[in-house]
Parts: sequence; structure tokens; C-alpha cells
Amino acid sequence: MKIAVSGKGGVGKTTISAYFAKRFAKEGYQVYAVDADPDLSLGTVLGIENSDIANLKPIVDMRDVIAAKSGGGGSFYSLNPDVDDVLDEYAINLGNIKFFKMGAVKQGGSSCYCRENSFLNSLMNSLLLKKNDVVVLDMGAGIEHLTRGTSKGVDAIVVVTEPTVVSVQTAKVVSNLARELEIKSVKFVGNKIRRPEEKEFLLKQLPAADILGCVSYNDHMLDAALGIETTEGSAGFEEEMDQIFQNLVKDVQV
Amino acid sequence: MKIAVSGKGGVGKTTISAYFAKRFAKEGYQVYAVDADPDLSLGTVLGIENSDIANLKPIVDMRDVIAAKSGGGGSFYSLNPDVDDVLDEYAINLGNIKFFKMGAVKQGGSSCYCRENSFLNSLMNSLLLKKNDVVVLDMGAGIEHLTRGTSKGVDAIVVVTEPTVVSVQTAKVVSNLARELEIKSVKFVGNKIRRPEEKEFLLKQLPAADILGCVSYNDHMLDAALGIETTEGSAGFEEEMDQIFQNLVKDVQV
Repeated sequence: MKIAVSGKGGVGKTTISAYFAKRFAKEGYQVYAVDADPDLSLGTVLGIENSDIANLKPIVDMRDVIAAKSGGGGSFYSLNPDVDDVLDEYAINLGNIKFFKMGAVKQGGSSCYCRENSFLNSLMNSLLLKKNDVVVLDMGAGIEHLTRGTSKGVDAIVVVTEPTVVSVQTAKVVSNLARELEIKSVKFVGNKIRRPEEKEFLLKQLPAADILGCVSYNDHMLDAALGIETTEGSAGFEEEMDQIFQNLVKDVQV
Repeated sequence: MKIAVSGKGGVGKTTISAYFAKRFAKEGYQVYAVDADPDLSLGTVLGIENSDIANLKPIVDMRDVIAAKSGGGGSFYSLNPDVDDVLDEYAINLGNIKFFKMGAVKQGGSSCYCRENSFLNSLMNSLLLKKNDVVVLDMGAGIEHLTRGTSKGVDAIVVVTEPTVVSVQTAKVVSNLARELEIKSVKFVGNKIRRPEEKEFLLKQLPAADILGCVSYNDHMLDAALGIETTEGSAGFEEEMDQIFQNLVKDVQV
């Protein structure tokens, strides 16, 4: 199954993506976790050292290798990770998780990330997954990965939203664009809920049946954000995310 | 003066941009406020109706008009808002603020926003400003507007950051890219500060002399985010932002 995590900047896409990657891995799935945001952060949240992320070859560099293997005709062969080790060169292994980055940080004024997005889309579409393989794509903030069509071909898109007017507005635009890309399953996660009226606000704004669940704001996240290791207060987060995970698996039928 | 507001997704770029636009307008400047994020929100925060934003012609549509006026040679004439009314067709007027949007929301899979970014850059560079004119650009989340060079040519970039590891990481990448673009003034604003250790964290991570100031997290913002009108708790925000504004004006010498 291929899942893209999307939403406005700062809503918690990376936190949710990291949870999904770790959780699927814990459940015995082979996980391909991809940081599809040029502004890299999924690796950091998964616990990888910044220097290792910086040294990792980006997915886009695979293009020439795959073109050569495909006979150079520009078309893609189906990439079967079971028999093909080309992916391994571009991955950092964390148990059952293989971590990838879409692109590297470039020089100011040098170029856009269109080539990276386009190649990632082709790669995703040529990847042969087994029943127990899951791809988790942590998308860039906002809507451009959708207008670019990067996430075309995923089975599900999880749109994360805070309980704010502008964040919900983006969530709605993302969900419309996802439907235009014919993504079958478009689901929502409410994040950083501080007050009961915030949950009510989300329930009024979004179709209740498509909300996988809500995550409360908590100090555990604040400490984690400051780089302080703590387990205090994480029980609530784990419980809420467990429910969201169960609903995701049920809804999109992994 | 041309100011771009940048930073990781969700750090509060739009809130800070809207404050700057309104504040400069209040001080008697003519403000050109540009939403340079395809995931539009500056207009909403400035209080413009969604339908009016949706109906507004995006800046990128100016391209053909300007090309025709320039004699069609592909090069730009210097756009002088004093004698030239081409801008007015693309603006929503709010007192001393003229609001623009870089691009419109597109269809899923239709295209990137490279053309929009490239044209915005040309337009900014061809705009003749008077002493009392200020451009405030609310950039898209992350780093792509810098690798694309959209913000090349601004006088100052204000990098907004939350007190989190990943947000500060982005702020540093943004500031390096801004220097590669030879932007003279690169300043930071700490936002959503909840605890004293968070402010300390920022002071440890970023050069103190380049921090314009810090903004506390407050319930006023939460209510505003839910679309609830309130002035309660806004005094602290106004005070902190006033200090930041004073420092900005002093530092970049409007």
C-alpha cells in the first residue's frame, strides 16, 4: 500500500508520517519511508543523524541508473525490491524501515524541484509492492505536490489539519485535488487539539466519516521538538495514534 | 523596501506578514502585500472574503499584458505604479494595502508553480518603489522559493521559526540560501514561544544580533485561528510585534 501524508505547513505531517512508518514496521511490514519535502525533516524525526541524511544519495540520482537498466529508452522497468538491489544504495535502514529522501538541498537560485517530483512519481508507479510492503510519503507543505501530480498513484492520502480556519481551508483544497488525481481514499487527521471547541470546529468543517481521529496537543511533543528525550505524556499520543492507525488500516484495507 | 517572510510550514509566516502589511500601512506607507504561496492564506488573514480572493486575477496573468506593453521583446519595462495602472487590475485595495496573489489554485496533476515564481521574481525586480513604498511577500513554506530564486532581489528576508529542532533547522537552511542569493539583511523572528527554555533554545541556535524578537503563544491567536473575533490577550502580541517592527525598520533602514 502507498500512503501520502499531506496538509498545510506545520500541521504535523512529519510527526504523523514517522508514526505510521514506525508502526507499520512494528507490525512486521516492510516500510519504504520517503521524505518528499525539499525542506527535509522526516529523517530527523525518525532519529537519523543530520550528517547521515546529508550524505544520503537522493532518489532523483537513481534516474540515470534506472534509465541504463531499462535499456535507455526513457521508459521504466517495474522495480521489484525483492530481486533488485538498486533501492538499497539510496536507503538508510532502520530495522524494517528503509528511509529515502526525494532530493538534496540545492543552492539558492539554482532550480526548482520539478525533476525530483516527477521522478518520484514515476518511481512510485513502477514499484512492485508485495502484500506486506507499505510506502509512506511525507509530502511537502501545501498543494504543489498535488498540482504537480507527485502523489498521483498512491492508494490513500492522509490530510493532516490543525483546528484553524486556514489549515482546514488547505485540507479541503488538498482533498479536492486528491480526488482530481483519482486517489481512492482521502482521510483526515485533526492534530494539536487543545480545547473541546477545536474538535467541534473540525467536525463541523470536515466529513465526520472521513476523519481517522484527532491528536491532542501535549508537552511531550514540545519536549521532543526541543530535542529533549521524554516519555512523559506520550501515553495519550500513543493511544490516539493507535486509534488512527486502526482506522487507517480498516479504511484503506492494507 | 522589499521584504520576504520565510520559514518552515506553519511557523506563522502569514500572521507576521499580515502584521507587517497592516503596520506599514498604518504608518502611512503604500504597501504591496503579495501572497506568494500557492496554498493561499494571506488574503484570508488580512480579512478578505474567500470568494474575492478566488475571483482575483493572479499576478502571473500580468505577463502577457506587460510583454505587450514592453514591445513584446520578452524584456520588462520598469513598472512604475505612480504612472502605470496595470497593477490595479490585479489588486484588492484595503486602505493603504494593495493585496495580490501570485497564482491561482490549479487542477490536480496539471502543473508546477515555476512560471508563477519566475514571473513574480521578474515583476519584483522591475517594480520602481518610492521611499514610502513597501512590498511584503508572504512566501511558500520551506526552501523551494529560495532554490527557485523567487525572493532574489528583496532587501530583507525575515525568517520565522518556532522553538523546535526541525523549524530551526529550516531557518538555518533558509538563511544560508538567502545569503547565496545575496540578500543583504537576513533576520529571525521566534514565534509561538510557550516556555522560557524555548526562548533560550532559540538564542542558543541563532545569532542573537539577528533576532528581531520573539512572539509568545497566546489564546488570542487560537481564537483568531478558529475565526472567532476577539481582542482579549492581543495586547501582548501587539507589544511584542511592535518591538519586532521597530527592530526591522531600524535594521533594514526603510
